[in-house]
Amino acid sequence: MKLSPAVANVRALTFDVFGTVVDWRSSIIREGRALGGAKGLDVDWAAFADDWRGLYQPSMEQVRSGQRPWTKLDDLHRESLQTLLAKYRINGLTDEEIDRFNRAWHRLDPWPDAVAGLQRLRRKYPLATLSNGNVALLMHMARYAGLPWDAILGAEPTGHYKPQAECYRGTAAYLNLPPEQCMLVAAHNDDLAAASQVGFRTAFVARLSEYGPNQTANRKAEHDFDVVARDFGHLADLLGC
Amino acid sequence: MKLSPAVANVRALTFDVFGTVVDWRSSIIREGRALGGAKGLDVDWAAFADDWRGLYQPSMEQVRSGQRPWTKLDDLHRESLQTLLAKYRINGLTDEEIDRFNRAWHRLDPWPDAVAGLQRLRRKYPLATLSNGNVALLMHMARYAGLPWDAILGAEPTGHYKPQAECYRGTAAYLNLPPEQCMLVAAHNDDLAAASQVGFRTAFVARLSEYGPNQTANRKAEHDFDVVARDFGHLADLLGC
Repeated sequence: MKLSPAVANVRALTFDVFGTVVDWRSSIIREGRALGGAKGLDVDWAAFADDWRGLYQPSMEQVRSGQRPWTKLDDLHRESLQTLLAKYRINGLTDEEIDRFNRAWHRLDPWPDAVAGLQRLRRKYPLATLSNGNVALLMHMARYAGLPWDAILGAEPTGHYKPQAECYRGTAAYLNLPPEQCMLVAAHNDDLAAASQVGFRTAFVARLSEYGPNQTANRKAEHDFDVVARDFGHLADLLGC
Repeated sequence: MKLSPAVANVRALTFDVFGTVVDWRSSIIREGRALGGAKGLDVDWAAFADDWRGLYQPSMEQVRSGQRPWTKLDDLHRESLQTLLAKYRINGLTDEEIDRFNRAWHRLDPWPDAVAGLQRLRRKYPLATLSNGNVALLMHMARYAGLPWDAILGAEPTGHYKPQAECYRGTAAYLNLPPEQCMLVAAHNDDLAAASQVGFRTAFVARLSEYGPNQTANRKAEHDFDVVARDFGHLADLLGC
């Protein structure tokens, strides 16, 4: 397998995490059902999971726009959760129970190919997160799911949420690399396009059920990315790992 | 083994790295001898290693004092190296050779008990660096030495060199923990005393040959630390891992 010169120059792989490495939707549904079973709640947890994720971009946008100071994703998730507990008329949870449910985002299951693929990729490249998740969230998720990160980077250590350029640039700076020697692996066209704008190399990995059975977005690569892979095993093949 | 209430409350272990986890002095001497052999240099590499480490605190002090903006340790090491190449009259190295020698700090050998001890400790606690080393340095060292960090934290992600309080406090904040639920493991009394000042729990591990065969400093705990261990295996015993 001959790598293109641009890809051969890559010295570290960075990863979007929610949706690319882990299946947040099924995991949040699972956590919701467990809570609902324990508490006798009758809730459409798939709709709840989609609503929770639906508040993700608007909550980060308040930070990106400067409307509010830096706020870590765990805290944004917690505020969104309060909103949804009211919307779904879920009452009577203690603060501790709400905190525990909020940490469902620390217990997301990896896609079936993710861990084995990362282990192969790691033999050749250092692997870092480039996620909007905060450090503690990503650290606990890695321990839960067995994700072999060499460094946890991205939004919190750079103080900027993707797709702001500072998040990609700052992550490359932590790695002592120019952006051209970093590759972002992601299942989202917008994220990769933003990384490409600052010089990152790009690998698209399709995740066809991230948003559930009727997913229409991000089913295929919409730009001229450096690598397009079916899953992390295929990505390891394509990168010669 | 019954833990004291203060220690039972700990939710993450953080580690000083240079001297506590890895034997920087022997490793730099080894790297110097390899360079000297390849280049035909006649240098006292033990003295060179001690001199290089001797410039460590003064170089960080320029940053701590505000005399210069944030500068990562790799860059401070590189400046100190230039000074010492002149002092030892080592000429004729290319920039690439100097860069490679500077990255000797990325290739430090762990103390014999370190990796096995960390693996035991990690079953119970998340493990994070709390080092003045920059992220890329610590990441490459971890890959070289097999150090199983869950997160690489400390000076660079907080923008403050130890023993500044912001470095300890900021590391705890990344971990989503109050300082009282973090423990610093270190071979240096001053580092532990500074961590204790901001509320960290403390574990002293003696490293009797860090500074070479005639070491006088840091041979024993000089304050009332929460735990005092002979090595990382003993630390794992004392923490019930």
